[in-house]
Amino acid sequence: MAVAFAGRMNGIKASEIREILKITEQPNIISFAGGLPAPELFPVEEMKLVTQKVLGEAGRQALQYTTTEGFKPLRQIIAHRMNTKFGTALTYEKILITSGSQQGLDFSGRILLNEGDVVLCESPTYLGAINAFMSYGPRFVEVPTDAQGMITEELERIIQTTDRIKMAYVIPDFQNPTGRTWSAERREKFMEIIGRYEIPVIEDNPYGELRFEGQRLKSLKSLDTKGLVIFLGTFSKTFCPGYRIGWVAAEEEILEKYILVKQGADLQSSTIAQREIAGYLEMFDLDLHIRDINRVYKARRDLAISTMQKEFPGGLSFTRPQGGLFTWVELPPHIDAREVLVRSLERDVAFVPGGSFYPNGGHENTFRMNYSNMPEDRLVEGIRRLGSILGEFII
Amino acid sequence: MAVAFAGRMNGIKASEIREILKITEQPNIISFAGGLPAPELFPVEEMKLVTQKVLGEAGRQALQYTTTEGFKPLRQIIAHRMNTKFGTALTYEKILITSGSQQGLDFSGRILLNEGDVVLCESPTYLGAINAFMSYGPRFVEVPTDAQGMITEELERIIQTTDRIKMAYVIPDFQNPTGRTWSAERREKFMEIIGRYEIPVIEDNPYGELRFEGQRLKSLKSLDTKGLVIFLGTFSKTFCPGYRIGWVAAEEEILEKYILVKQGADLQSSTIAQREIAGYLEMFDLDLHIRDINRVYKARRDLAISTMQKEFPGGLSFTRPQGGLFTWVELPPHIDAREVLVRSLERDVAFVPGGSFYPNGGHENTFRMNYSNMPEDRLVEGIRRLGSILGEFII
Repeated sequence: MAVAFAGRMNGIKASEIREILKITEQPNIISFAGGLPAPELFPVEEMKLVTQKVLGEAGRQALQYTTTEGFKPLRQIIAHRMNTKFGTALTYEKILITSGSQQGLDFSGRILLNEGDVVLCESPTYLGAINAFMSYGPRFVEVPTDAQGMITEELERIIQTTDRIKMAYVIPDFQNPTGRTWSAERREKFMEIIGRYEIPVIEDNPYGELRFEGQRLKSLKSLDTKGLVIFLGTFSKTFCPGYRIGWVAAEEEILEKYILVKQGADLQSSTIAQREIAGYLEMFDLDLHIRDINRVYKARRDLAISTMQKEFPGGLSFTRPQGGLFTWVELPPHIDAREVLVRSLERDVAFVPGGSFYPNGGHENTFRMNYSNMPEDRLVEGIRRLGSILGEFII
Repeated sequence: MAVAFAGRMNGIKASEIREILKITEQPNIISFAGGLPAPELFPVEEMKLVTQKVLGEAGRQALQYTTTEGFKPLRQIIAHRMNTKFGTALTYEKILITSGSQQGLDFSGRILLNEGDVVLCESPTYLGAINAFMSYGPRFVEVPTDAQGMITEELERIIQTTDRIKMAYVIPDFQNPTGRTWSAERREKFMEIIGRYEIPVIEDNPYGELRFEGQRLKSLKSLDTKGLVIFLGTFSKTFCPGYRIGWVAAEEEILEKYILVKQGADLQSSTIAQREIAGYLEMFDLDLHIRDINRVYKARRDLAISTMQKEFPGGLSFTRPQGGLFTWVELPPHIDAREVLVRSLERDVAFVPGGSFYPNGGHENTFRMNYSNMPEDRLVEGIRRLGSILGEFII
């Protein structure tokens, strides 16, 4: 076999999360590693009804090809939901259906990035975005963040001293991996700077509707007066991930490029999946469903945080997110979370070391914990074990 | 708005087919333009049963994330089917589930092509593959073909005189757009040459099982002793396209790269779609279903060809495919099929001009006709109208 792969393949490596997830497939492992929603909340019975209706009323169309842009009624519902939830003023023409928001990330890289172009991102940022963009050979410049989000003074300083900035990639709501949410002030300031320098923004928003408490804040897209923000949404966390349906919302001049790329990449997302989700949204109340999800996740977050406060040793810190799926732990600088993971796996507990969330490396003293995917008793037991292991490291 | 797109976007244009399909969405248009399977054959009632079973037995898993590689039972069924139908000797580890075979094309470009690398292809070749590869900036070198497939003497001559050949892309069974099938002898000779020069081959095979008559021929993958052939398969034509489920079959050293790219591109294909197709394949007999499809398509091909013989003027030629969805028309050299299309659309008949299937242009005197998607009366009426229009061009 003498296959020579393309140069871009050198930069692409397996997602550490997916590799850890494989190890943690055994049922005895207590895993804080995934970003999985709680399957006991999935609307299984509802989807039985929806499928019968979709196949009964329009079976042939549901199993046939559809347009690259996606099923129009679903695009209309999404535009309307975004306008209600995220304060935008979109029509369906500005929505493209994608196969999860991960596909929106890949397409964003493909459309915007030449090799060597700079992506501005939060530090840390979502690993799946780093992997998606890596295919296109960019440089990542990490903008320092704090509890309020991206530090806008640092952002402006970096913009002024960095060549070839092509886009900013951010997750302002319940960020993956930190669970942090940008303050209203930072959002305004960020958009002001971005607008001044005319930098396209990828606003990745899979968790925005999973708010347990506090005020909903304006999306960047709703503050976008110059058509610079490309919003990525998904049903994976508010509904279920199995259909792989997400979307891109952008001004038509930009969305046009996404549609062209989608055509070459996979023609269209699943027709029947699109019709089924539209069917669910017509027959049932997604808001009610999200309220149920948030009630369960809030209880788990409360329990996770209170147990961590009790069981974790001093000398470390962690975030208390107002929504979403993750909390983020910072250990004393000399401790390597990968070493902690090795010891944890011996005791059947898993999490994701934080180093992978920094595209330029470092910060090995951090890790990400998911609290949404586990029943309460296992959550407590897992944190207890982890606390005792951390106690062996932090003396 | 000041968004600067990546350089690769210059090469990407809308698929002419998709654009024509949009025009032809009006029900009064008789369209030979699409590559759509006949929806009246879709197993709608069967899929109602399958979905109830899948959601009833494993609803939570069906709506959750799964592995990037895909649902293992489906991968096993596909490996087994390929071994039976295409003479391969695969295990499930060599199968990756993709979102249609179009995604396999995109990934092939991403994995193999640096800018300026050469793709060898048939002349003409599949427009969707040209579009997928264009993202990666290759040069296409068209190898002359005749009724037996790629002319292997020409192939060898081109290999000897061309630098930077990175892969060969071919559709040996009922090719899109010509409907032609490579002879057994050409397959053997092709693989001998490819093996000698160690060139990776993308064998695109969406139509192989849609044979109406004649002997089934060996797939290139079954003749592959050096692990050079990457086989792309799909359920879109033998089952239905709405689920967007296809696959890549390749040696593990290569497949590994496809899995990495899949992870960054969209994490995985739809969990429930994979489980539903596996469910269908367990509960029903796909071979029986394909026999029904072939009976209908054969009747339509027979009718299309006999009507074309009667209604088309002299001075042109067309293929008589032994399977698949398309026939290919060659007009006298001075006639531009795009001009014929303009006149046809005025009389509510559509087809795809052939020029787009030649990556380096030319051959505007050709067009592609689909015969699978239309009831018999409209097929005859459409060909009649087209024949009269062609008569105005060929005097």
